[in-house]
Amino acid sequence: MLTLNSHPSGRHFLQIPGPTNVPDRVLRAIDQPTIDHRGPEFGALGLAVLEGVKQVFQTQSPVVIFPSSGTGAWEAALVNTLSPGDRVLMVETGHFASLWRKLAGRLGLEVDFLEGDWRHPVDAAAIAARLAEDTAHGIKAVCVVHNETSTGVTSDIAAVRAAIDGAAHPALLMVDTISSLGSIDYRHDEWGVDVTVAGSQKGLMLPPGLAFNALSARALAAADDARLPRSYWDWREMLAANARGYFPYTPSTNLLYGLHEALAMLREEGLPQVYARHSRHAQAARLAVAAWGLELLSLDPTAHSAALTAVIMPQGHGADAFRKLVLERFDMSLGQGLGKLADRVFRIGHLGHFNDLTLCGTLAGVEMGLAAAGVPHRPGGVQAAMEFLAGERASAPA
Amino acid sequence: MLTLNSHPSGRHFLQIPGPTNVPDRVLRAIDQPTIDHRGPEFGALGLAVLEGVKQVFQTQSPVVIFPSSGTGAWEAALVNTLSPGDRVLMVETGHFASLWRKLAGRLGLEVDFLEGDWRHPVDAAAIAARLAEDTAHGIKAVCVVHNETSTGVTSDIAAVRAAIDGAAHPALLMVDTISSLGSIDYRHDEWGVDVTVAGSQKGLMLPPGLAFNALSARALAAADDARLPRSYWDWREMLAANARGYFPYTPSTNLLYGLHEALAMLREEGLPQVYARHSRHAQAARLAVAAWGLELLSLDPTAHSAALTAVIMPQGHGADAFRKLVLERFDMSLGQGLGKLADRVFRIGHLGHFNDLTLCGTLAGVEMGLAAAGVPHRPGGVQAAMEFLAGERASAPA
Amino acid sequence: MLTLNSHPSGRHFLQIPGPTNVPDRVLRAIDQPTIDHRGPEFGALGLAVLEGVKQVFQTQSPVVIFPSSGTGAWEAALVNTLSPGDRVLMVETGHFASLWRKLAGRLGLEVDFLEGDWRHPVDAAAIAARLAEDTAHGIKAVCVVHNETSTGVTSDIAAVRAAIDGAAHPALLMVDTISSLGSIDYRHDEWGVDVTVAGSQKGLMLPPGLAFNALSARALAAADDARLPRSYWDWREMLAANARGYFPYTPSTNLLYGLHEALAMLREEGLPQVYARHSRHAQAARLAVAAWGLELLSLDPTAHSAALTAVIMPQGHGADAFRKLVLERFDMSLGQGLGKLADRVFRIGHLGHFNDLTLCGTLAGVEMGLAAAGVPHRPGGVQAAMEFLAGERASAPA
Amino acid sequence: MLTLNSHPSGRHFLQIPGPTNVPDRVLRAIDQPTIDHRGPEFGALGLAVLEGVKQVFQTQSPVVIFPSSGTGAWEAALVNTLSPGDRVLMVETGHFASLWRKLAGRLGLEVDFLEGDWRHPVDAAAIAARLAEDTAHGIKAVCVVHNETSTGVTSDIAAVRAAIDGAAHPALLMVDTISSLGSIDYRHDEWGVDVTVAGSQKGLMLPPGLAFNALSARALAAADDARLPRSYWDWREMLAANARGYFPYTPSTNLLYGLHEALAMLREEGLPQVYARHSRHAQAARLAVAAWGLELLSLDPTAHSAALTAVIMPQGHGADAFRKLVLERFDMSLGQGLGKLADRVFRIGHLGHFNDLTLCGTLAGVEMGLAAAGVPHRPGGVQAAMEFLAGERASAPA
Repeated sequence: MLTLNSHPSGRHFLQIPGPTNVPDRVLRAIDQPTIDHRGPEFGALGLAVLEGVKQVFQTQSPVVIFPSSGTGAWEAALVNTLSPGDRVLMVETGHFASLWRKLAGRLGLEVDFLEGDWRHPVDAAAIAARLAEDTAHGIKAVCVVHNETSTGVTSDIAAVRAAIDGAAHPALLMVDTISSLGSIDYRHDEWGVDVTVAGSQKGLMLPPGLAFNALSARALAAADDARLPRSYWDWREMLAANARGYFPYTPSTNLLYGLHEALAMLREEGLPQVYARHSRHAQAARLAVAAWGLELLSLDPTAHSAALTAVIMPQGHGADAFRKLVLERFDMSLGQGLGKLADRVFRIGHLGHFNDLTLCGTLAGVEMGLAAAGVPHRPGGVQAAMEFLAGERASAPA
Repeated sequence: MLTLNSHPSGRHFLQIPGPTNVPDRVLRAIDQPTIDHRGPEFGALGLAVLEGVKQVFQTQSPVVIFPSSGTGAWEAALVNTLSPGDRVLMVETGHFASLWRKLAGRLGLEVDFLEGDWRHPVDAAAIAARLAEDTAHGIKAVCVVHNETSTGVTSDIAAVRAAIDGAAHPALLMVDTISSLGSIDYRHDEWGVDVTVAGSQKGLMLPPGLAFNALSARALAAADDARLPRSYWDWREMLAANARGYFPYTPSTNLLYGLHEALAMLREEGLPQVYARHSRHAQAARLAVAAWGLELLSLDPTAHSAALTAVIMPQGHGADAFRKLVLERFDMSLGQGLGKLADRVFRIGHLGHFNDLTLCGTLAGVEMGLAAAGVPHRPGGVQAAMEFLAGERASAPA
Repeated sequence: MLTLNSHPSGRHFLQIPGPTNVPDRVLRAIDQPTIDHRGPEFGALGLAVLEGVKQVFQTQSPVVIFPSSGTGAWEAALVNTLSPGDRVLMVETGHFASLWRKLAGRLGLEVDFLEGDWRHPVDAAAIAARLAEDTAHGIKAVCVVHNETSTGVTSDIAAVRAAIDGAAHPALLMVDTISSLGSIDYRHDEWGVDVTVAGSQKGLMLPPGLAFNALSARALAAADDARLPRSYWDWREMLAANARGYFPYTPSTNLLYGLHEALAMLREEGLPQVYARHSRHAQAARLAVAAWGLELLSLDPTAHSAALTAVIMPQGHGADAFRKLVLERFDMSLGQGLGKLADRVFRIGHLGHFNDLTLCGTLAGVEMGLAAAGVPHRPGGVQAAMEFLAGERASAPA
Repeated sequence: MLTLNSHPSGRHFLQIPGPTNVPDRVLRAIDQPTIDHRGPEFGALGLAVLEGVKQVFQTQSPVVIFPSSGTGAWEAALVNTLSPGDRVLMVETGHFASLWRKLAGRLGLEVDFLEGDWRHPVDAAAIAARLAEDTAHGIKAVCVVHNETSTGVTSDIAAVRAAIDGAAHPALLMVDTISSLGSIDYRHDEWGVDVTVAGSQKGLMLPPGLAFNALSARALAAADDARLPRSYWDWREMLAANARGYFPYTPSTNLLYGLHEALAMLREEGLPQVYARHSRHAQAARLAVAAWGLELLSLDPTAHSAALTAVIMPQGHGADAFRKLVLERFDMSLGQGLGKLADRVFRIGHLGHFNDLTLCGTLAGVEMGLAAAGVPHRPGGVQAAMEFLAGERASAPA
């Protein structure tokens, strides 16, 4: 069998911002015999996960589950609701927003792209302004990323909703929660989102391979008029089959076992506790970064992500060489800089199945790596995080 | 944790024609920690499976792996090579051919559908005739199903290739091998196939969740001109990333672990041995059906499937009630009749990770089920199969 | 990793009379991280299994769990209750009774061995007679095997109790239930047993590695006076630590996880249903043997085992060559003849995690093996079993 | 299924000095179907592990494997070589040495116990002196603990051997390596040890349930004359069956799968690298303890254990309350003080499947626990360890 960890001993620290460390309970659930996806036991499983997953999206509306990566859920959101040549408004929060834009372009959509510096959240006022200009309502959808995985910046979705409502604009609101769902408070219904896009491999603590669209009544209505070609991603056959717990084509049976277990774990911990845990770990991580004297990529203290922390490498030091050293010497995977941030930042994932001591080990790996790589920094990052985690020190302002 | 088998004791017999029984080795491989899909260990894994899977397709050309069901690979084959309004020639071998046709229609393609009775293989002569008529070469692709999972009929792909060549027609040849790959001899290169469509959950012995397109140089060339919108399914970014073992979006890491192990198992047994095993088990199953005095759905003795056997229920007896009884009393899942065959046939899967005694148990479940359900039949089916398997009895002509 | 099954495809049929096929649920439970055996979570687990296992023994008294094989539980029963030179009465039901006797001799005990022909159960009248002669009460214990795994003969423990009581003899009653517990109705309290000996790898559906002593108040009292040296097996420290769910030395943590799961499975099915299932499968197996025209080793129809069936090979045919052929051609392990039965019988295990179709596959393997090996027999064994299992045929008298 | 970790999220830190964190590879190896312990595949497995395990003991002599805890291997060492009333010389290195002494007493042996303060290693000179007095050679065995798990003190076995040889005394040398084997360099042959006692759940990285006796020719000769009653532990039947890879009674099949995998892992890393890793981690741990201003239990700098570090709690602070806080708040299990050290020390296990970042997380848990519990200490322990691990700081003298 392929040896998956070339390190001779100990557990790998998978501290990229997803895929995250999959709990043993979830892996073991997946490691069960595949069953008949048309049989009665599957139907019960299907109903349980289709219903259970709604709680994580905080919605009463249907959630569609695809056997695909999160990228597929981006595509599904668009092809189910839009027609060739439709205009969508997207916001450049970072690499993933840019990829979604590119995908939309390939599908034949016209994209209005609100430019950004990859260090700030979505500017709801700018959206409001753009929509106000669009008196003809040519813009059919506003697409934003809740938590930009490439930058560690979280946007205020309620504010985006308010901007759309303020402009009395009929555009659909679509939100990518790939790296926030199950980690950062997210409210599909309360925030009036029409399509929420998510994946299995982050806060849901599963291996990659499942993708999600949470819908709204307006999104479903749009699906009736949308004319982009679609079949695999079509919600309508999905929802028809889902009503009894089944799927129109063979689903990822074993990943659905894992989803069942992961949902149980989230329920056992409680979503508010899950969110508070992520927030606390993110604060500790930022205290460490501050202690090291390094710069956060995220510039808006109200928008620092609870799921990951992106750190700018000091001038003259490549992030990739640093990450390579950390992987080779300390057996930890850190997230790389993506797109225009390549080699300039590294990202620390602290989401999913995670706890205080794993965070301390993670931060220790960064701090030792900085030292071993000769990257200018002050020691004391782990110390600062520990003081906060042990309750001796209040969080820094941000 | 959800109890997946409501039977109190013993191992479930999953004898639908896929998903098949996943070997413990494969399940245990999947049950390993998820790794960084951008790290060096993943790259080595990626190269190994991308190269290794070619052997099963018997191709030197690239094979693309999607995180999706087999249905996705149908869609991928079409959107990568065709443009809106293109004509394709499809052949009605059964339910799955009909579904693929429906999918093509939804994508905006024009489908010439050669009708069939769901009991015979593809008629290569009819394809030749249709292509000969198409002197303008309006038909851009011929799409056939190698092994029609809904009927248990296997078609002669080399003959289809010869028909196209005989007509000197430039149409691409696309073949669905979802229920044949890894079970029935299939030769992508030798048979001149342009796109082969496959899935993980049958002869590859994996849970569902991976889908495949094996390509040809002509298919790749067609991808440059094709104008159907595509992004998730686009081969070009896939192939670019695959060159170093990576993927353009997050792949199904853990299912790829399973693929690595499944490929090792197929290599250890040897593909010729794998095909011979399936053929032998299919012969035994047909001997049992003949002994019971029941009728095979497949009418052409040269086209009986080595992967599954579809059996027609005697008049006045519903297949679904019979399957339900077998499931409840004997803890075995049999395949249902699909589409117009609903309630009229049941299907016995004998593909994938399988052996003589499991086949005997399977046939015993059918025979006891027939008896318990009061379905007219003669006993002796298991006996006939055993005599053949033990080498005492030569196979029936087909 | 060592490849454990040299057969290229399909699931091995482990049809020795133990170790038995371990359910996936149990294997997966064992496959969890080891925890601190002195921590609070372990205490809860310990209490749960120590209490839960009592139900399988049908006792209110304590059950001691050793990290050992069943052989260790034989030794533990003796060293906790007896003193050097003590006399014990044992009964030669077969190979395992003979091994227990040998073990007793090595520990320095004097053994009165009631001889037997390995084809009959314990003769309670002979015990009564021997005890009646022992007016000085020199015999300190009567040791019998409930289900003799080497022969497939089950003895009447209540009758043995009655014999002891009838003789008004104070000897302790010790019973080996290694291959009956969890498969055949067994009542530690009701039958007045003082020490019951059991192991994990048969009806309890676990891998080997745990052994059990169920106790009585008289056994505990005897432990205070017993003078055989003992430390590892000493019940007293065990019971003291068990009171809070712990053990005096490191227990087999992960096998205890498996025990927890196996007990849950037995509870879900219900012990009466478990016993009825074993009895039904044994009847089916004997019908097959009768149909083949082969001879059962067990001669007393009231004593045929519900857990296994031992079959005598026809004169001139070696059982071991037959078993080797079955293993190599049909990937099934059958039990060998032990001790003086070596090469003369083979044993079919039909206990533990088992169902109708696996039994049919098992019997098919025997029948095909007989044919392939040229062993004289009539076909029709599987057929006879199927008719019985499908409800068409009442059981033969025995 | 029992939830084994009451913490809602993240991986438990099992930092007791054994059982240790079992690698996923080993757990997954154990999680395979049980096979026939008398079949050919088992024989191959048996030979592989019986041969492979010798390398870890650094011996050419046989190693016996019992289904038992390490305590059983203590008993086995004594009952195979000694006779009732024999004298043995034992050394009070700590709690486990005291337990072994107690066990010897229960078996009817006379124990000369060289008293110790539980803070120093074995005093070879004292052994030499005692043996010199024993001109009649009444002492039949010298029994010492290589690495005293209760104290974190490692003794010099070569020096003990030299002491025996210097006294020209024929006593056997028996050594407990339960918490050193596979973690600390140990040389059965070179050091002239007659019986080495070991268990599976520490440096061998397995769950508990296997125990070992490595033998010498003299030990085997002694077994022929020894008169303590024995059966389960008897080496002779073991060795006879082991010659072909089998066992005289049912072995712990699935734990042997794990042993096979664990031996592969140790070979892959290399034993010298394994020992160096443990030594390095122990140095880092001691640097942390020194930085905290806490006192090591171990007083002899040449004898500090590489496998665990025992720390004395400051006066007025109970170790158990501290450990409870660490478990509840930080999800880490630390080792408790045993015997007379109860509540006075805590022990940090840093052995087995372990790496730098897990050590940092472990030390962070201790440091945050000290802070949260209000235990007087200086911060900076993790910092000191990190500096050492990152290579910036040479180790303190000891």
